[in-house]
Amino acid sequence: MDNYRAPLDDMRFLIDEVLDAGAALGGLAPFAELGVGPDLTGALLEEGARFAGDVLAPLRRVADAHPATCEDGRVTLTPGYAEALTQLAAGGWFGIAASAEHGGQGLPELYGTAACEMWNSADMAFALAPFLSSGAALAIETHGTEEQKALYLPKLHSGEWTGTMNLTEGGAGSDLGPLKTRAVPNGDHYLVTGQKIYITWGDHDAVDNIVHLVLARLPDAPAGSKGISLFIVPKFLPDADGNPGERNDVYPVSTEHKLGIHGSPTCVMAYGDNGGAVGYLVGEENRGLACMFTMMNEARLKVGLQGLGAAEGAYQKALAYAHERVQGGVPIIRHADVKRMLLTMRAFNEAMRALAYSEAITMDLARHGEESDRAAQQARIDLMIPVIKGWMTELGEEIASLGVQVHGGMGYVEETGAAQYLRDVRITSIYEGTNGIQAADLVSRKLGRDGGDTMRALTESVRETARALSGDPALRLIGGALAAAAAHQETSTERLVALLAERPDAARALAFDYMMQTGYLFGAWHLFRGAAVAQDRLAAGSDNPFYAQKVATANFYAEALLPRTRAHGAIIAGEASALEAFAEEWLA
Amino acid sequence: MDNYRAPLDDMRFLIDEVLDAGAALGGLAPFAELGVGPDLTGALLEEGARFAGDVLAPLRRVADAHPATCEDGRVTLTPGYAEALTQLAAGGWFGIAASAEHGGQGLPELYGTAACEMWNSADMAFALAPFLSSGAALAIETHGTEEQKALYLPKLHSGEWTGTMNLTEGGAGSDLGPLKTRAVPNGDHYLVTGQKIYITWGDHDAVDNIVHLVLARLPDAPAGSKGISLFIVPKFLPDADGNPGERNDVYPVSTEHKLGIHGSPTCVMAYGDNGGAVGYLVGEENRGLACMFTMMNEARLKVGLQGLGAAEGAYQKALAYAHERVQGGVPIIRHADVKRMLLTMRAFNEAMRALAYSEAITMDLARHGEESDRAAQQARIDLMIPVIKGWMTELGEEIASLGVQVHGGMGYVEETGAAQYLRDVRITSIYEGTNGIQAADLVSRKLGRDGGDTMRALTESVRETARALSGDPALRLIGGALAAAAAHQETSTERLVALLAERPDAARALAFDYMMQTGYLFGAWHLFRGAAVAQDRLAAGSDNPFYAQKVATANFYAEALLPRTRAHGAIIAGEASALEAFAEEWLA
Repeated sequence: MDNYRAPLDDMRFLIDEVLDAGAALGGLAPFAELGVGPDLTGALLEEGARFAGDVLAPLRRVADAHPATCEDGRVTLTPGYAEALTQLAAGGWFGIAASAEHGGQGLPELYGTAACEMWNSADMAFALAPFLSSGAALAIETHGTEEQKALYLPKLHSGEWTGTMNLTEGGAGSDLGPLKTRAVPNGDHYLVTGQKIYITWGDHDAVDNIVHLVLARLPDAPAGSKGISLFIVPKFLPDADGNPGERNDVYPVSTEHKLGIHGSPTCVMAYGDNGGAVGYLVGEENRGLACMFTMMNEARLKVGLQGLGAAEGAYQKALAYAHERVQGGVPIIRHADVKRMLLTMRAFNEAMRALAYSEAITMDLARHGEESDRAAQQARIDLMIPVIKGWMTELGEEIASLGVQVHGGMGYVEETGAAQYLRDVRITSIYEGTNGIQAADLVSRKLGRDGGDTMRALTESVRETARALSGDPALRLIGGALAAAAAHQETSTERLVALLAERPDAARALAFDYMMQTGYLFGAWHLFRGAAVAQDRLAAGSDNPFYAQKVATANFYAEALLPRTRAHGAIIAGEASALEAFAEEWLA
Repeated sequence: MDNYRAPLDDMRFLIDEVLDAGAALGGLAPFAELGVGPDLTGALLEEGARFAGDVLAPLRRVADAHPATCEDGRVTLTPGYAEALTQLAAGGWFGIAASAEHGGQGLPELYGTAACEMWNSADMAFALAPFLSSGAALAIETHGTEEQKALYLPKLHSGEWTGTMNLTEGGAGSDLGPLKTRAVPNGDHYLVTGQKIYITWGDHDAVDNIVHLVLARLPDAPAGSKGISLFIVPKFLPDADGNPGERNDVYPVSTEHKLGIHGSPTCVMAYGDNGGAVGYLVGEENRGLACMFTMMNEARLKVGLQGLGAAEGAYQKALAYAHERVQGGVPIIRHADVKRMLLTMRAFNEAMRALAYSEAITMDLARHGEESDRAAQQARIDLMIPVIKGWMTELGEEIASLGVQVHGGMGYVEETGAAQYLRDVRITSIYEGTNGIQAADLVSRKLGRDGGDTMRALTESVRETARALSGDPALRLIGGALAAAAAHQETSTERLVALLAERPDAARALAFDYMMQTGYLFGAWHLFRGAAVAQDRLAAGSDNPFYAQKVATANFYAEALLPRTRAHGAIIAGEASALEAFAEEWLA
């Protein structure tokens, strides 16, 4: 039985006290009327926590044992999923962070981020349904015609319809250039034919319609990634009133038998087996990949949140077991190594949450902040997204595995439910761009495009925090640790910027280490900012143990986790020649 | 389809050229007639490789899809397992490293180690059958009466019968003190009643009899771990001729539904539900735990080999895929980050193998070496065993996960077979003493008992190797890296020895990091010794690319993997106060 409870105190502290969402976002034009602040935070989080804890969490184990299946061109969902989708829609959660113009809630990305974390802690397989829907909606919002927006967005935001993203084919994964699905003009629409794989929530009967966003190639399109266009291919063609009409020629062929996220129907989708699926162009011809790129930051933030979500679920389960299980005459939580594992889980979760929520605000500011500041905020979020996606999913796996370990032999028995977190989260370092691709993006593109300037500026902000912390005797240790880690980060950054110019292959071989080093540092930065706020409260006379715990968690991170940056820094500082020197023919 | 092929060139190079088994072991009394050396190595390894590759490896995926099941007190094995067991027995592999006195092959542990690696690469679930059998045989060999040895050992060594170890109960896992299974004297035997869980290969019909080694408590036994005795409880009571006779009162109740190793029947076993199972005392009353301890080094070495075995299987599968899968116009092996992952897997596998095989020789020397040297060899193996078990199983999980990652989305689809390595290997950091227990054993017991002297002496040997390497321009870099890592190890050792005296809880909280630091260092040591041999061959004019690859692998390890010791060293060098300062009530 799962007893996930959203960590509301931690979330509220972070959103209202550390990030001060009201001050940061409340004055921005689209949020001005919403009353961003503790009351809104509290109401939203409590409502979300109820749904996550009471409705979703009990479905996680059910879905694992009763995967989505596909037969005769129809997908059957896990029992209970359809009802949960209806409730999620009724709560208005599908369009929480979508623009109010077309029926979204118009809330900051920050709140969507907190909700996304909860859904993923409760049941990651289910959480993919709203995830993909909002991705499809964002693509239409950003690149669709006014008519397309009016037709599709209200239904997607309300959860009456769901959406999917159709990119991958058998021969086209990380590199979409070779994709073969074709779209041929046919009057006011196109006829799409081809097969797509790994289509998350590709089909189901729980909603009235499914809006597939499909990458395909026009007959005269240039070869490779510059000849790919984006299409809307609805499962049912909307009639004149916008209601689901004629069945379109798109069907699920099968669902994959996966390591985890069994509840999510991962479909092979067939387009046009009976003459051609009707599709409508989104944006310009041959600009489909560019359309995808504009949604990437949101999607990758959410995958990072899946890492955190699974990690938080795994932590709560392990913690409960460690209190209950007695060995050597005491609950195992009193064994030093078990406590070490639990604190590692907890401290990383708090650090990941602090990083992700903080950067969700960056995303809001990049869209809605002062005009003159938007480019800087966008540069910051562009830099941080591969770190959020890569570092948080790597940690998600580590923490889910620690959750198994705390359970001992029981963790290996499936009925316990600890192993499922590990199986589920294992996909997150693969999809939405493998973590190798995140690392390459961070180094080759993001460092490369401004020669490291954005990273230098951000690292300088870390140093400022470190100096402030060091001025307080109670925070001197974490301040010193943060300053040292920032210095190592600077060394790594300069090394990679230089290598990018001289030996780009060597830079790419070090990219993964740099992504991890960066994650550990920035996780520390945001976690320690929270410790500083907590210490202020204590200094002002608060005797709330919550604040003491925040400082203690930061101390543990500084002592036991942040030193991991040393290893990555040392690797980056090395010769970086062994990988290239290793002949390919020796890998036979 | 699995295409595991034992890495014979690597194994032979290690056994014959680096470790020079003939010189190290060939002259010892029990091995004097065997002709230990390249011919024997070659013959044995080739025979083992055939069985592992042709018979076992094709069963790995079958077993995953067709787990062992239990119904009506009988276990049904995966199809093909019974035949494979028969072939394993016919090859003489069950008793490969057991004393020839009672029907074993009498070969060095070194060869048993190589065989064990192969079985675990091919199919870990199957490999547990001979693993547990040899454990049971060793318990009888070490503590049994002459009559017991004569009765049971030939059958266990020949594989006609298999053996099990029955320790864990619902309330007694890492701490066996509270176990409740009872044994009541009844004439020339005892009547055993109780229930055991997690009994690996607890029942099956593939052999004529199963010899259960069972920990139980006598009626007048002291409480706790000092009141536990060891019993032989055969499935069928041997008749006067030693053949299986009357059915004993021991039955499997159920098998666990596990994350991995599906082919291994993990049984709940019921003893004496129909009056009492006949058991025979092994060793002295109330000394059962001590009997277990004498087998621990062998068992933990083998679990470490499971980590290596799974990692090698995962590597081979990922390597094949990386050659085959094209993205961006080239096989993905040419992408720097994929190459990094594959080299990480390969270098760690070679390092683990070098460490494990080297310490298998230590084990042989501790038993059969010069009398005056045995205590020193025993101290060394006692120190290294928790490192082999802990470090190699942690790496096994990391490497199996990298194997999934190299496959991208395909890795997450179960049919690919990459994910199974991860699921299977995940048990190895839990059973036979969790890795937290290994770490505590390393620090509290092994460092504690001689104040670090054995570790100091071994680290000095590492320094000697580093000095020798540094004298060769071609090996200067790895020599320098090894010397630096040895220096960090010394610092960590001294810090922990001091903490053990002053703040033992703080030492325990750092034990896991120390175990990992030690593993990375000693893995490097043994790997680099191989590089030195390879470099000698190159310097002597060899143009065999195999030798160049060995040097290149060591370079990669030095550059990209050994720096991990910095993180662990930095953590150990820290204040080590945050964990204790974190109040238990904050973990609520």
